[in-house]
Amino acid sequence: MSRVERLENGLLVALEERDYPGVAFQFLLPAGAVNEPFPGASTLLEGWLWKGAGGLDAEGLAGALDALGVRRGSGAGLEYTAFSAAFLPEVLEEAFRLYALLLTEPWLKGEDLPAVKSVALQALRAQEDQPARKLFSELRKRVFRSPHGRDPLGEEGALRAATPEALREDFARRYTPVGAILAVAGGVDWRRLRGALEPLLAWRGEGVGYPTPELSEPSRLLLKRPTAQVQIGLAYKDVGPEDPGFYAARLALEALSGGMASRLFTEVREKRGLVYAVSAFPAGVKGQGLLMAYAGTTPERAGETLKVLREEVERLSEGITEDEFQRAKVGLKTALVLADESVRSRAASMARDLFMLGRVRPLSEIEGALEALTLEGVNAHLQAHPYRDPWVGLLGEVDDVS
Amino acid sequence: MSRVERLENGLLVALEERDYPGVAFQFLLPAGAVNEPFPGASTLLEGWLWKGAGGLDAEGLAGALDALGVRRGSGAGLEYTAFSAAFLPEVLEEAFRLYALLLTEPWLKGEDLPAVKSVALQALRAQEDQPARKLFSELRKRVFRSPHGRDPLGEEGALRAATPEALREDFARRYTPVGAILAVAGGVDWRRLRGALEPLLAWRGEGVGYPTPELSEPSRLLLKRPTAQVQIGLAYKDVGPEDPGFYAARLALEALSGGMASRLFTEVREKRGLVYAVSAFPAGVKGQGLLMAYAGTTPERAGETLKVLREEVERLSEGITEDEFQRAKVGLKTALVLADESVRSRAASMARDLFMLGRVRPLSEIEGALEALTLEGVNAHLQAHPYRDPWVGLLGEVDDVS
Repeated sequence: MSRVERLENGLLVALEERDYPGVAFQFLLPAGAVNEPFPGASTLLEGWLWKGAGGLDAEGLAGALDALGVRRGSGAGLEYTAFSAAFLPEVLEEAFRLYALLLTEPWLKGEDLPAVKSVALQALRAQEDQPARKLFSELRKRVFRSPHGRDPLGEEGALRAATPEALREDFARRYTPVGAILAVAGGVDWRRLRGALEPLLAWRGEGVGYPTPELSEPSRLLLKRPTAQVQIGLAYKDVGPEDPGFYAARLALEALSGGMASRLFTEVREKRGLVYAVSAFPAGVKGQGLLMAYAGTTPERAGETLKVLREEVERLSEGITEDEFQRAKVGLKTALVLADESVRSRAASMARDLFMLGRVRPLSEIEGALEALTLEGVNAHLQAHPYRDPWVGLLGEVDDVS
Repeated sequence: MSRVERLENGLLVALEERDYPGVAFQFLLPAGAVNEPFPGASTLLEGWLWKGAGGLDAEGLAGALDALGVRRGSGAGLEYTAFSAAFLPEVLEEAFRLYALLLTEPWLKGEDLPAVKSVALQALRAQEDQPARKLFSELRKRVFRSPHGRDPLGEEGALRAATPEALREDFARRYTPVGAILAVAGGVDWRRLRGALEPLLAWRGEGVGYPTPELSEPSRLLLKRPTAQVQIGLAYKDVGPEDPGFYAARLALEALSGGMASRLFTEVREKRGLVYAVSAFPAGVKGQGLLMAYAGTTPERAGETLKVLREEVERLSEGITEDEFQRAKVGLKTALVLADESVRSRAASMARDLFMLGRVRPLSEIEGALEALTLEGVNAHLQAHPYRDPWVGLLGEVDDVS
């Protein structure tokens, strides 16, 4: 079971203690593309932070964390900026002292910004060479009327125009303990963790709001590109984790795209050989569930592939079979046990739960909810919430396909 | 500690028992691109196998494994075809019964081959839209004079021309217990595992050889493509895991590209902002170590990026600093502990060890070897084995860069 507490400065902290020689955390800052003042501000801030804090310059910061053996990553996403790290328990205090420096005493010097912008522009440019990623980035822009359709990579003009002043103001406004979430899993107890978080208490700030997601009308997007394959993307409205039908929808998704006997793998890939890769996956935001589906194929087979992909998603409303139901249930339960093995994946799900639901679901709750599902219940949900009227995106050497 | 035994039919089996509610295996078959009769034969065989075995057709096989909750993957690689799986201990016997069916009673029906070929051709085509992957595929072809430069995806002509007869003959020749490796980690003891492997004993075959790797002369490759970024790849000769200098080289690679304070991250990305992604990684084969390096940048900055990338790799021969040495050692030891957490990653390293070294290195051995390294020893190794004369590959909108 997790212990969850709010510190004096508003930071929400969760710990799941494990008898294991490693500690992982996932630290979410309420600074994502959805609430940024201009496209790419979150990405620039995250990069700029690492340029110096307290008495340490960029090399000093990186060197100090590397010297502790901290394995880490960080990046700005759609709904928050995430810092993740894993390390051995003996460096716990020193690791948090360094992360606290980033938040309480960042340099944010104007002279360091050009290199940060240059890296961000390179990342944006790199996306042009990743056709599937590009397609879903553009498709999301069509799906949302609200800022939830933004790409965290930002936009070239806004990245170039960003000033140190605007970004510093944004840091003060959005990098706040109120709204931030720190989830920790591994070989550390609460008392020790609480002590290690002491330097974070100097961090202050009020917290900002998040916009409410709003969908646009379903539409069709065609991006003409000289690629070898045609990329196909679909987006459907779905229920989110706060909905009572969430587990039914999750089980149906497993039947659609979870294993080698799943409908998409069988019908689109194995029987017809239309694609190498095909999948459906949850792609929602807080307050709005989404199901997305992907396939890549030749221009000649794009029409048939799109047709079969849509048919398979949409005929879920007719229900799944008893066999599919049993397979999906066992598959999800096994995946749950296997994912729980890793403190890194556990810290990530804890943080995500706190963000989406305001609490951490114990594994036993998820197992119980899956166990309580019935075939009739799942099929009733699918009938009442049919996947219909998708946003459709195509990228490649095609004019259009029906 | 692992227990390693050879079964009566020649299959090499390793088990590392864990007190953990999950079991993972990695099963390597001696059928990779290096020893295939024509390009893509291993990929076709792997796909074809799943089309039916024993009394089960494709859907029956996939459905039976999904019903057990087995999470799995499989694919043909350069040196072997790998089947990986993770599941709960209670399905151990049934899971191995199904995998044994694949090996002992595969259908390999001619009528199923066209769909398998179609998927393989799609995968080959998809690579054309992945510029970095395409570059390294072509670069490897230049590096090796022996078949070690082949791409496991195969070649279009050979995939189309493949006959059922040739593939069946290839199956009999290469899908053999002699030369195959099965590594298991997780909540199962030897006695039970040995019982579960009973159905595999009916599997017979003599085993095939592997060619010896041979390098060509260093050369330069230029692939003109209309991509947004220029992709840069380097390949250098290196020592392999069988070499006494292996751990020294591994530690130097960590200093070069392991953390945020590593040389490539600092010099190529952070200080100069030349790239979003830059890395160096081991890319050798059994009997021949290789170090490869990658960067993606704009056409205008390609020349400078290539220059800095080469300089950073090549000045390793001048040695690393005491600080870098300490950071790299702590980083590698932490990574070792964190990776050991997962039964899936442990089974994969056990199998790789058995393939490369003929034995499984206990974690304590690796920790001990890292601990025994000295700065002087590492620098002496780097001086005696300088990274020089790379194969250089460029892909993008460039004519050439010096």
